[in-house]
Amino acid sequence: MHSKQRPLNDLFLGTLKDIYFAEKQILRNLPKMAKAADSDELRQAFQTHRDETDTQIERLEQVFEMLGKPARGKTCEAIQGIVEESKEVIEDFDGSEALDAGLLAAAQAVEHYEISRYGTLRTWATQLGMTDAAKLLEQTLEEEKKTDELLTRLAEAAVNQKAA
Amino acid sequence: MHSKQRPLNDLFLGTLKDIYFAEKQILRNLPKMAKAADSDELRQAFQTHRDETDTQIERLEQVFEMLGKPARGKTCEAIQGIVEESKEVIEDFDGSEALDAGLLAAAQAVEHYEISRYGTLRTWATQLGMTDAAKLLEQTLEEEKKTDELLTRLAEAAVNQKAA
Repeated sequence: MHSKQRPLNDLFLGTLKDIYFAEKQILRNLPKMAKAADSDELRQAFQTHRDETDTQIERLEQVFEMLGKPARGKTCEAIQGIVEESKEVIEDFDGSEALDAGLLAAAQAVEHYEISRYGTLRTWATQLGMTDAAKLLEQTLEEEKKTDELLTRLAEAAVNQKAA
Repeated sequence: MHSKQRPLNDLFLGTLKDIYFAEKQILRNLPKMAKAADSDELRQAFQTHRDETDTQIERLEQVFEMLGKPARGKTCEAIQGIVEESKEVIEDFDGSEALDAGLLAAAQAVEHYEISRYGTLRTWATQLGMTDAAKLLEQTLEEEKKTDELLTRLAEAAVNQKAA
């Protein structure tokens, strides 16, 4: 890799650390969201996504290894803010019929953060000629998109149920 | 509106304040990103989106009016974190060929945050029977999605250019 590409490598490693930190926060928070969820479907969605997140963290560790760097996170304020929001929802809307709506909103903010990060990382991996890393990041990107679609379906089902 | 729906109204108003705060931060930050951008296309994209953001803020003010509430923001840590990231990119990658890549990444994180918020607000507006508000929010949602697609095209064009 010639030296002109150095800065993109730096961006890549920095963003990898950002999403690694974010995934660990999400992994810790998902069981709390599952426990709080009112509907069985939403609880199941959070539990399934928790297991997926485990695999996604392993993929990130593989990418760190490909770079020859230790897997280390870097504080990501965006994800801290979103996770904080989900905690406030649990506190403020416990027992309310709007609880799941609030949990869905927070979860979709998380998914969209991840979609933007994995999309960026996948593009940069390709640009840097890291084909195997690009494939791993693409796999996770597709999972995050599917999770977001599932959450959208659950949110819209709640609207239709209310209308019925 | 019967009282059982109260909590969803609270969520709706809270999230409206969150995105109103976020849009104002974005409006202030976009000229800085435009000024820093290396390529004419990216600079143009940021300038166009700045003008769109003006209109989007007006739409939010219309929704506040429909609710009979004053238009007021509520600190949103997620957007503060993302805006901070764009400032760090400008500082750390000034003069580097990776500057635009970093700006694109931060801008796409912003777009995805907005896409998740406007998607949620539009769904809740429908659920609350606020058809006119739902239409305004849908308009902005579509604009944000188009902006994200444009940014993706610019990011991928950079990869292809590099490969050529």
